[in-house]
Amino acid sequence: MTRPVQRPAGPTLAVVARAASVSIATASKVVNGRADVAPDTRRRVTETLDALGYVRRPRLAPQRPPSVVDVVLRSLDDTWSGAVLRGVEEAAHEAGLEVMISAGLARNRGGGPARGWLDRLASRGTSGVLFNRAGLTPAHHAWLAQHRIPYVMIDPVADPPPGVPAVRAADERGARGAVEHLLALGHVRIAVLGGDRRRRYGGGAARVAGYRAALAAAGVRERPEYVRYAEFSTDLARERTRELFALAEPPTAVFACSDPTALGVYQALDGLGLRVPRDVSVVGFDDLPEARWVTPALTTVRQPLREMAGTALRRLLRTDGERVPPGAEAELPTRLVERGSTAPPRDAFACPGSRTAAVSPNEPGSGTGP
Amino acid sequence: MTRPVQRPAGPTLAVVARAASVSIATASKVVNGRADVAPDTRRRVTETLDALGYVRRPRLAPQRPPSVVDVVLRSLDDTWSGAVLRGVEEAAHEAGLEVMISAGLARNRGGGPARGWLDRLASRGTSGVLFNRAGLTPAHHAWLAQHRIPYVMIDPVADPPPGVPAVRAADERGARGAVEHLLALGHVRIAVLGGDRRRRYGGGAARVAGYRAALAAAGVRERPEYVRYAEFSTDLARERTRELFALAEPPTAVFACSDPTALGVYQALDGLGLRVPRDVSVVGFDDLPEARWVTPALTTVRQPLREMAGTALRRLLRTDGERVPPGAEAELPTRLVERGSTAPPRDAFACPGSRTAAVSPNEPGSGTGP
Repeated sequence: MTRPVQRPAGPTLAVVARAASVSIATASKVVNGRADVAPDTRRRVTETLDALGYVRRPRLAPQRPPSVVDVVLRSLDDTWSGAVLRGVEEAAHEAGLEVMISAGLARNRGGGPARGWLDRLASRGTSGVLFNRAGLTPAHHAWLAQHRIPYVMIDPVADPPPGVPAVRAADERGARGAVEHLLALGHVRIAVLGGDRRRRYGGGAARVAGYRAALAAAGVRERPEYVRYAEFSTDLARERTRELFALAEPPTAVFACSDPTALGVYQALDGLGLRVPRDVSVVGFDDLPEARWVTPALTTVRQPLREMAGTALRRLLRTDGERVPPGAEAELPTRLVERGSTAPPRDAFACPGSRTAAVSPNEPGSGTGP
Repeated sequence: MTRPVQRPAGPTLAVVARAASVSIATASKVVNGRADVAPDTRRRVTETLDALGYVRRPRLAPQRPPSVVDVVLRSLDDTWSGAVLRGVEEAAHEAGLEVMISAGLARNRGGGPARGWLDRLASRGTSGVLFNRAGLTPAHHAWLAQHRIPYVMIDPVADPPPGVPAVRAADERGARGAVEHLLALGHVRIAVLGGDRRRRYGGGAARVAGYRAALAAAGVRERPEYVRYAEFSTDLARERTRELFALAEPPTAVFACSDPTALGVYQALDGLGLRVPRDVSVVGFDDLPEARWVTPALTTVRQPLREMAGTALRRLLRTDGERVPPGAEAELPTRLVERGSTAPPRDAFACPGSRTAAVSPNEPGSGTGP
């Protein structure tokens, strides 16, 4: 304890190698305990090391292989990623793994990880990779299989090849529940702002399919002008909402296929002087923190993001990268969280086409409006 | 390429150790090239290894020590942490480092990292640690110094010992600018919701000091009842705001010392039927994403969180853990981002104490109110 810390002294490995008539590489192998050195050579090098008083420099490096799981995200500063990271970190902590993060996806236009990142991953090793909302190409999948790197996709935005494990929320059922809630309140003029119409997953088509299923089950005719796509963008949602409320017969409720989409709806309605939920009901999808921050707080479909991330990690630890069981897709249930953004439509008692019927006889004067 | 992958055969290290009459630990040291083995012992073990045909198991571990930087956060699913993570990841990517995350702080009540995490850190090694909003104890600082682990604190919530590098925003100056903005609009009844009154840093006392400095410079008397603390909590901010607006003379503007605090102000005002900015102006501090999500969008003091994180990482790479230059604290400038939550007070033209003077003669009927 009282011994002062000393810098290692003595000859360098190059000096040892020259004295033992071997290459530096061979001397290094002996020092590092590598097996691929001929016994005579090893003995000669070992004797030279001792004779010259070689002191190996202490490494600051890990003594054991770190047990690391990688998480690859599109971005780090959105609340979706935050919830996923929290879920991964908690599950990794339980499993005794460290978590390495990479926003590599954002650096590659194709939506998949960049080549340099993949090469680093292969050279440093990993227990496996969780891809969050990634659009991996067939080349990515082939590379991962070839390098035998286990991986699981969380809410993939493109169909993974058969057998690649994926974890997602029950998008279609969740969306259906959201629209059933609006129908139960008396809404029939319900619009939807979908994600990306070209994607089966990532909430695009699946959530719109849930919307359609709910309308069909209730016998409500679908109006094509009420189905629009905002690509999960608050800005686009603002535009789409203004279009919806410029229609001759605007909707009385909007189902936004993500919470950031719902924020755009709120902003557009505020600009139009319409109040939520008095004039328009809004339902989101995600239950991100922003759902509680807005006024009124947003009724939304809760995706269990933390649980999805934890499930993905546990799947990863079971996966051996070679024999992935088929049908390895996990779909976690959602639930509707009712807050302040939904109410019966103002003309709840109106027969379609006869707006005056909406006026209650007990409201004096309200029939004098336009 | 066509050679099949084979499991290593041959004796275990225990067999070798027994044959060489050494402990397994000693045999392991020789295999791993450790220097702290007596030359004779090393030779005997080496000969036994060769004689028995010991084959070291190939490691799946990294061949080289990974270049890893650790980020320790209190939580992962808040927008503050997201911005910091983004800044660290971008700067680390540029420096060729991997980023390991840990929400270990949350697992220890004292606000510092848990002991188990520190032990793991010491055994696996790291290029250094960035502590985000951590309240490290003297014991933590001593441990880090003893293990020669470089570290930098981002926005520490407790005073770090002299010489420990820290990066923070110019809290006091930023707060002063926020209040000057309100004064310039004509507000004099300005309240402040501070963070934690006991902390010098983390925006508590420093931002309240900036508030006081702005009032003093403008010759506005400070009212003790206008200075309250909400500990950066939206829930507490809601309570404090209701207290402020129950005063005989409520403020016309509130400076909230964080954006989550400002959200609580918004919610309380909405509950009281007061509109922002028509009835009350609100300024936040942070410029987190939520500042843009609320309606009206929040005027706030922008902390350059990404830049702070990048600065912290670059400081870390310069830091050698032994000779930290004194005065190593970096304070990054803030700037006021004007959005929709601030306006002149409704009674801007009123002399203090004479509210009727606020009524413009061009507004017929407005003088008939209470």
